[in-house]
Amino acid sequence: MTILIIGLGLIGGSLALALREHGVASELLGVENSEKHATEARELGLVDRIVTLDEGIPQADLIVLATPADVLPLLAVKILNRINDRQIVADTCSIKSELCEAISMHAHRGRFVAVHPMWGTEYSGPRAAQRGAFTGCTTVICDADRSDADAVEVITSIFQQLGAPILHMGSEEHDLHAAYVSHISHVSSFALALTVLEKEREERHIFDLASGGFRSTVRLAKSAASTWVPILLRNKYNVLDVLREHIHQLEVLRRMIERDDAEGITRAIERANSVREILS
Amino acid sequence: MTILIIGLGLIGGSLALALREHGVASELLGVENSEKHATEARELGLVDRIVTLDEGIPQADLIVLATPADVLPLLAVKILNRINDRQIVADTCSIKSELCEAISMHAHRGRFVAVHPMWGTEYSGPRAAQRGAFTGCTTVICDADRSDADAVEVITSIFQQLGAPILHMGSEEHDLHAAYVSHISHVSSFALALTVLEKEREERHIFDLASGGFRSTVRLAKSAASTWVPILLRNKYNVLDVLREHIHQLEVLRRMIERDDAEGITRAIERANSVREILS
Repeated sequence: MTILIIGLGLIGGSLALALREHGVASELLGVENSEKHATEARELGLVDRIVTLDEGIPQADLIVLATPADVLPLLAVKILNRINDRQIVADTCSIKSELCEAISMHAHRGRFVAVHPMWGTEYSGPRAAQRGAFTGCTTVICDADRSDADAVEVITSIFQQLGAPILHMGSEEHDLHAAYVSHISHVSSFALALTVLEKEREERHIFDLASGGFRSTVRLAKSAASTWVPILLRNKYNVLDVLREHIHQLEVLRRMIERDDAEGITRAIERANSVREILS
Repeated sequence: MTILIIGLGLIGGSLALALREHGVASELLGVENSEKHATEARELGLVDRIVTLDEGIPQADLIVLATPADVLPLLAVKILNRINDRQIVADTCSIKSELCEAISMHAHRGRFVAVHPMWGTEYSGPRAAQRGAFTGCTTVICDADRSDADAVEVITSIFQQLGAPILHMGSEEHDLHAAYVSHISHVSSFALALTVLEKEREERHIFDLASGGFRSTVRLAKSAASTWVPILLRNKYNVLDVLREHIHQLEVLRRMIERDDAEGITRAIERANSVREILS
């Protein structure tokens, strides 16, 4: 199978490595708008050839869109305009509602499979691509009933070969859940980094005293604005909803600390502890 | 050297393992109030013998207090009451001001060294004790000018043998910095767990969609209330100060998302990104 990946950053690049490692693609083509990233992708040998969209589309059995969230919906429409009815298009984006709405009435809607592999790191660009990505990470397929059965079958089979369990979900439900279990973590981490940077004048001490716990909670604050601004704004209402609840929870803890409410804080921490069972 | 460790939980237990591994102690004694923890510590062989305070104190060259923050200051006074002027007492607690104030006028103040090894995990109790702890983790010695030179020298040498770089700091400065780089991470993580638990009805989806990012930011939410309630309340004013700033930063991000301020969010994320250099 010839696979064309559009966008050879962290996700597109890691997918290229995984597809090659698991022998899924007989030929891997890549499209990369950034000259710098294209050069890096070539040096790293992420794909067999870097091509233009015009060159790549007619040759590909499967086209994967791994671009930032802001350019995705319109790009998906344009790609669907240009494929035949045997080619398959998929994406890897963290948000799905706007995309699925944009393509909902497209004549080739059935050829599109909306995919979100729940994997990522705080790094970006082709050099951030990692071997072994996706293995063991849930991959969500959204609105599969709007895709042709053969297209869903191909995508399912590919991610199963990569060792990623498949989960089905509606696109709106997906965006709500993603806000809870991914997007809010990033907002919280950005805010935590800003808090410490703002308050701490002697940065040497941040470095010296930063323990594993701090590193773990601010890790995501290293993530790129070019990835996260589109996600936060395009999943705005879900993100705001969770963010309001998060600020409320912090306010509740703050008030309990203010009034030395040891029992209240204990109850809150014990309830928070129950993420143990959920994440174990 | 005979070392007595009071409290054989995560920190005391890990310290016992490290002292043995690096051949620092010729004999390791432990005091453990909880019958359950004492049994576990015996089964794990963390120390050579579990003893009572009365038995242990006269035999020990060094006494290390690894108890929760709430019982520490008074216990430190009581231990100092009972040592001779060659024995050394140290602690491993995350907060220092109240402790250092409690012992400040004690006739044996010079025999006490206030130590904070910047290491921990989200687990607690003897079974959480880990080999290799402390190595590479900064260890803070507070108010060293209030301790006898020979006592500071012994403690410094021990943590150097464990591979932990030593940093000197005043106890009040320490508590302020600890609030920034450790305590706020825990509050944020507890609040994040509570947010998701509160808003998410279908817990199955938290589990299925939880990516590495979420796991990383809520990891600390598994931490024990018995450890953290005393820390948050006894470092109350520093914790509240950082918490207010953190809530403010979240509010600023929230308002920018509300008004689609892509430029503002980009600037904020790029500023947050600078933790990269500090933590690298």
